[in-house]
Amino acid sequence: MATIDFRIEARDGNARAGLATVRGRTFQTPAFMPVGTAGSVKALAPGDLDRAGVQILLANTYHLRLRPGPERIRALGGLHRFMGWEGAILTDSGGYQVLSQAARVRIDEEGAAFRSHLDGEPILLTPEEVIRIQEALDPDIAMVLDQPVALPAAARDIAAAAERTIRWAERALACHRARVHSGQALFGIVQGAADLETRARQVEVLGSMGFDGLALGGLAVGESREETAATVSQVLPRFPPQLLRYVMGIGYPEDLLLAIESGGDLFDCVLPTRHARTGQAFTSRGVVRLRHAALRDSREPLDAACDCETCARFERGYLAHLYRCDEMLGPILVARHNVRFYQRLVRAAGEAVRRGASAAFRAEFLGACQEESPGDAGGAPTCE
Amino acid sequence: MATIDFRIEARDGNARAGLATVRGRTFQTPAFMPVGTAGSVKALAPGDLDRAGVQILLANTYHLRLRPGPERIRALGGLHRFMGWEGAILTDSGGYQVLSQAARVRIDEEGAAFRSHLDGEPILLTPEEVIRIQEALDPDIAMVLDQPVALPAAARDIAAAAERTIRWAERALACHRARVHSGQALFGIVQGAADLETRARQVEVLGSMGFDGLALGGLAVGESREETAATVSQVLPRFPPQLLRYVMGIGYPEDLLLAIESGGDLFDCVLPTRHARTGQAFTSRGVVRLRHAALRDSREPLDAACDCETCARFERGYLAHLYRCDEMLGPILVARHNVRFYQRLVRAAGEAVRRGASAAFRAEFLGACQEESPGDAGGAPTCE
Repeated sequence: MATIDFRIEARDGNARAGLATVRGRTFQTPAFMPVGTAGSVKALAPGDLDRAGVQILLANTYHLRLRPGPERIRALGGLHRFMGWEGAILTDSGGYQVLSQAARVRIDEEGAAFRSHLDGEPILLTPEEVIRIQEALDPDIAMVLDQPVALPAAARDIAAAAERTIRWAERALACHRARVHSGQALFGIVQGAADLETRARQVEVLGSMGFDGLALGGLAVGESREETAATVSQVLPRFPPQLLRYVMGIGYPEDLLLAIESGGDLFDCVLPTRHARTGQAFTSRGVVRLRHAALRDSREPLDAACDCETCARFERGYLAHLYRCDEMLGPILVARHNVRFYQRLVRAAGEAVRRGASAAFRAEFLGACQEESPGDAGGAPTCE
Repeated sequence: MATIDFRIEARDGNARAGLATVRGRTFQTPAFMPVGTAGSVKALAPGDLDRAGVQILLANTYHLRLRPGPERIRALGGLHRFMGWEGAILTDSGGYQVLSQAARVRIDEEGAAFRSHLDGEPILLTPEEVIRIQEALDPDIAMVLDQPVALPAAARDIAAAAERTIRWAERALACHRARVHSGQALFGIVQGAADLETRARQVEVLGSMGFDGLALGGLAVGESREETAATVSQVLPRFPPQLLRYVMGIGYPEDLLLAIESGGDLFDCVLPTRHARTGQAFTSRGVVRLRHAALRDSREPLDAACDCETCARFERGYLAHLYRCDEMLGPILVARHNVRFYQRLVRAAGEAVRRGASAAFRAEFLGACQEESPGDAGGAPTCE
């Protein structure tokens, strides 16, 4: 299909750094996508995302299917126009949300039937319906419907869901080829939980189907952090090298760095914006908890190593005050910072790949992260 | 004292347009101050205020006294450094908040004793204490403690509170002259409810005390809109012409235009940001209610006459979607617009003064405001 022009410009072990262009929209890889669940990256306007250096974001098909509905978004000119966002957009398929948010889910060969978590509306998501919805939403990159499995689960159930994920991927691809002619890319999703043999077969089959990119899904669904790490580091290097590799839904900075070292190109996670709402800021020295009383008198910037407006203009004492008073400006300023922090992180990781210093960069980052922050004497920040 | 350099550059009837500078910070008049109650204009960062054209903002002494406390703000470098705001700042005195928010208030000649609405802490605000707090906060303009009266009230109580307001003003001025040497300006406040004789005496006495500016207070405390309008239009023209005239706490665009026509220079109100949180946008054609279901399909900009980023980048359908999903971005984008709307309004009113077309401008604005908006067929916007 080749609707994505993906150029790997440097390699370092399994790690890669490059440039991807889809429908005229370019993003550097490794790339981190902030999550705009309902068509809005929480607390951030497109101009704020631009200033943070974001080039691609993610929106959720499941949530947009419920509100405002795909036909309304089509009538309003598609997601880019709707959100006022000129950068690239990827929508997920809803498979993960069916697992995590929907009620009364019943999955069979046809698709996933469930009730909306908002109003109980009965909904059937099939591989074809998910393609049709994403055609209406009109992101640059669409995802196939997959069947993740909540862990712990029996080996047989993991294998069965993985086989179904392959059959659904074939149906989705056929539907997409028949009806979507907008240059929209379509990615397959590798399932298989922590079963490395199943994962390997998924990569082999899905990787040769002709998708524009391949995702590693089914992470952060109940497995241990060690299992996530093992899956990422052992499965990702088997992906076809020419395809863009999207590692779904992780995570903390250290997870990202491991995934980049293992060959991942594209990432998403709600953490930067969710943590902002609970007063947790990612910094070069670890997570700073802004609801901590000791920070109220701090004259330190949030992160002396950061170039964002929040770090340039405010001290921790002010940010701590905003959270104590439940002022919206707290989550807004920290969301701007956290999203910028993630952009700087993947950009720096990409530069390390180009220098051939990927492993050293990761070790250095993790070391700095464990330093105690002098401004937060009462509660040392940690990398979670 | 003359710590404010105030130049009236044009007059039209009672209306004036000019330029004020205090401690090197300049603002054009008529000027509208967004309200940063707890040291944050709700949902807006200083950069957002800059982009909206704001040159001066207001913060509340009462709220900042409670959290984070004046000594903490002093230690953090004063309000400008604390808030990251380089424009001018005025703090009110807390008199109005004692009336409207505090619990178990007891007012005598010494001052106002009450309990904090947050934790029940007993607090005594005296004229001198309010000067000391504002010295610590270090805004460019401080206000004296006054005694507004909730209406309806007996004529005798109104007169007594007004006389006490004069005695408190004398104490505040003496205290300010003795201890504040930072170039901070101090304004007196005219009370007297809807009693025009009392108001006239207040203006005479307070206007000749040597304040750097004079405020019209005690509005929006329970009187009718007609009484507010009568007080503004009859009392304001009696103010000493050379002093900056601050009309406190109003209001809707039409209130502002009447006050400007009556000779007001400076205004504040929570409406632009509070309305943003409830989904009400001020536009050149009236208030648009974004929670209205009919707007979900609208491809109109919020206000075709506006130059803000919200109006340039988004359609009403998207904004309506954000409110339906309770996305923070709705209040953020509409706060940016509403604050810009108020800045454009006072700027346009000032230009009308310079053209000698003040009354025509007001009539034209009010006429346009009553047009029905075609994009909101189900619920015509109105000027409230």
